[in-house]
Amino acid sequence: MSYAILAASLRSAMQRADDDAIRHLIAEMQPADLADFVQHEQTDTVLALLDHLPLDKRATAFGYLDEGTQAEIAADLSDERLGELLTHMSADERADLFKLLDEPRRPGLLRRLAKEEREDLRKLASYAEGTAGAVMTSDYVAVPAHYEVTEALQAIRATGPNAETIYQVYCLDDDGRLVGTVSLREMILAYPSSRLAELMTEELVSVSVDTPQEEVAKLIARYDLLALPVINGGERLVGIVTYDDAMDVAEEEATEDMHKGVSVGKLEGGLRSASLFELYRKRIVWLVLLVFANIFSGAGIAYFEETIEAYIALVFFLPLLVDSGGNAGSQAATLMVRGMATGDVRSRDWAKLLGREVFVAAGLGLTMALAVSVVGVFRAGTEIATVVALSMVLIVIVGSLIGMILPFILNRLGWDPATASAPLVTSIADASGVLIYFALATAILGLPGAG
Amino acid sequence: MSYAILAASLRSAMQRADDDAIRHLIAEMQPADLADFVQHEQTDTVLALLDHLPLDKRATAFGYLDEGTQAEIAADLSDERLGELLTHMSADERADLFKLLDEPRRPGLLRRLAKEEREDLRKLASYAEGTAGAVMTSDYVAVPAHYEVTEALQAIRATGPNAETIYQVYCLDDDGRLVGTVSLREMILAYPSSRLAELMTEELVSVSVDTPQEEVAKLIARYDLLALPVINGGERLVGIVTYDDAMDVAEEEATEDMHKGVSVGKLEGGLRSASLFELYRKRIVWLVLLVFANIFSGAGIAYFEETIEAYIALVFFLPLLVDSGGNAGSQAATLMVRGMATGDVRSRDWAKLLGREVFVAAGLGLTMALAVSVVGVFRAGTEIATVVALSMVLIVIVGSLIGMILPFILNRLGWDPATASAPLVTSIADASGVLIYFALATAILGLPGAG
Repeated sequence: MSYAILAASLRSAMQRADDDAIRHLIAEMQPADLADFVQHEQTDTVLALLDHLPLDKRATAFGYLDEGTQAEIAADLSDERLGELLTHMSADERADLFKLLDEPRRPGLLRRLAKEEREDLRKLASYAEGTAGAVMTSDYVAVPAHYEVTEALQAIRATGPNAETIYQVYCLDDDGRLVGTVSLREMILAYPSSRLAELMTEELVSVSVDTPQEEVAKLIARYDLLALPVINGGERLVGIVTYDDAMDVAEEEATEDMHKGVSVGKLEGGLRSASLFELYRKRIVWLVLLVFANIFSGAGIAYFEETIEAYIALVFFLPLLVDSGGNAGSQAATLMVRGMATGDVRSRDWAKLLGREVFVAAGLGLTMALAVSVVGVFRAGTEIATVVALSMVLIVIVGSLIGMILPFILNRLGWDPATASAPLVTSIADASGVLIYFALATAILGLPGAG
Repeated sequence: MSYAILAASLRSAMQRADDDAIRHLIAEMQPADLADFVQHEQTDTVLALLDHLPLDKRATAFGYLDEGTQAEIAADLSDERLGELLTHMSADERADLFKLLDEPRRPGLLRRLAKEEREDLRKLASYAEGTAGAVMTSDYVAVPAHYEVTEALQAIRATGPNAETIYQVYCLDDDGRLVGTVSLREMILAYPSSRLAELMTEELVSVSVDTPQEEVAKLIARYDLLALPVINGGERLVGIVTYDDAMDVAEEEATEDMHKGVSVGKLEGGLRSASLFELYRKRIVWLVLLVFANIFSGAGIAYFEETIEAYIALVFFLPLLVDSGGNAGSQAATLMVRGMATGDVRSRDWAKLLGREVFVAAGLGLTMALAVSVVGVFRAGTEIATVVALSMVLIVIVGSLIGMILPFILNRLGWDPATASAPLVTSIADASGVLIYFALATAILGLPGAG
């Protein structure tokens, strides 16, 4: 049955309070769907629903809930029930949930966990948000490199049920250093008596605990990895990041970059679960800064007040010209920022791309000038149309170059080029547009007072 | 050794024409890195480098090259060598490359492939770009559901070396219909004599060949799948899409959405490999359309020409007010579009989100009005400052609402809400801003001629 049908049936079973039907439907649902279903229910309804599930599935579904909902439900659970849930969650999700709990509750809950899990949790929860340490899990399979395939398979059977993945097995030397990795695929296809040391890949892609999470996601995507080992200074394996967590990170990062592109700060949950004040707070800072940035455009206009008074028809074309520079600049900036984010564009490509942009922008500007000069002649005569057309070409070229250059400057300054690139580019391009337009107009049309 | 060191060493070995060193270094490099390295070299250099690799690694590295480079190199290869390469590529990458070849070359190459591969290729190459059929591979492992684990493992060993993944095994009934799936993990952890029919998950997430690829990527991410089965009408398995292809699709879609956000059409390769004309073509259409959209702003200005002539100081605040509405609107539109793309926002959430936006936008508008009225009083006196402040509040609210509403309208019309949302919102918000500002000014300040 599809999710939509299951969800509708479950909703009706809940209205009838038909416990048998509820239990049956819930058993059939994927944990991710279940989480999606309960996301909008009242906390006590969620608890009642989750109670119908066996503990391991309950823990899996719980891990799919967004952070806000997790925190709410956790607050309503007794230490005993929360402890049970924590025990059955995967190591990385357990650590994420733990970080959401109120400080005073934590020691009591830690005491409910087995010693090994407790130490593991303390370690995982200590890594900074946004790093490999914070997204990695300690549930991996590691065996001595001198093992034969049969021994390794035995080890997998022993630790496997709790491991996040058993498809990548990590090989350690006698000192416990990570020396290679063997996929389960290679093991299954090899002779049972082969030694891992002969099968393993020694050219490992790995990261350290403080590698930024977007870097981790990029490596996993680049090398098509199932899991990426995380090592500490002594080449000791401390965790792995699996591909599914990398996919979540990549989505999160893409969303963040898009929001940054319009100067919206990082939202903790999604748009739907963000509070009014959070939405306000994440949008206001840049909006106000951009107001002040736009004062430069205003100042430009004030400077040319005489020209405007003499040729009031010029104002008709102002929004059109100024916006065109901003639009072309935003395009260039976004192409650049995304190219840098996906690794398509590197610093050394910059000069070449800038050179190309001049030609592309000139082509764009000429075409737009053509379009606007038709309106210009019809509306304000040949002279003003000439000013408008010339301005258009220059404004589009300047705007595009600003769009290309700004992300690189931000990057060089150590700032994230995605931050506010497009709106900043727009504001700077706007001010340049005003100056170019009225300066050209004054030069070509002349000032009547001076004439 | 890290990629940077390997790449530098390889470059120097190539300058010394030291074939032994080249062979050694190439053997150590990851296929993805190798592809990245050769991407910018001349075609004959690439061919010489790839010749140092064994055929299977050569085929893997080739698959990582972008489409433009693949097509260039393929054009330079003899049918014999290209046939060799095709034979060793994975089924999905083979089909992608095949589609890049000139029509006349295809029959000759098809003849070089084994019958099974030939038919498979014909089928895979026939699916439309952007669908599950086009990204799926036919290299999967499928066995009868009545098999025991040991029999299934044997089947995996037989077909495994060519399969894209062996970690998910698909179970067929006697009529060849897909009835369930078992992970290799479950098999390894189960008794060797267990039957797959007892182990398998019957609640399958699957898609059909014409499901859009972004939908496929979303499902794989949502359910943390390693692979997603693709079935035809008769519930027959025709292929699988693996997580790594889904990650590529997700990145591609995120890039496309960001580009659409600033009205840039879909680039086939990246920014770096796009031709000047392609960049021009993908940017010009919307830029020109937006020029015409901005004529409405100009018309608004022309309508209020008398007011402007009477109070020329109003023009100082024009870019600032107009941009603020556009900026707030772009923020709202981007939050909405991205929320819809990631599935965070559904149609039924719309009314609620719209209601919330009124409050958020009012908050934003009041804050920005406060900021701007300081400048306003100082620069143009209390009266004009009042007009500017009032306009700011209204403009930001109207702009934000336009940003919230437009993506939904586009979606309802069956258009992609990401297309040009932000710039369209900006243009519409601009024109509204001009009208609001000058209408308020005329109402509050009055027309001197009429006074």
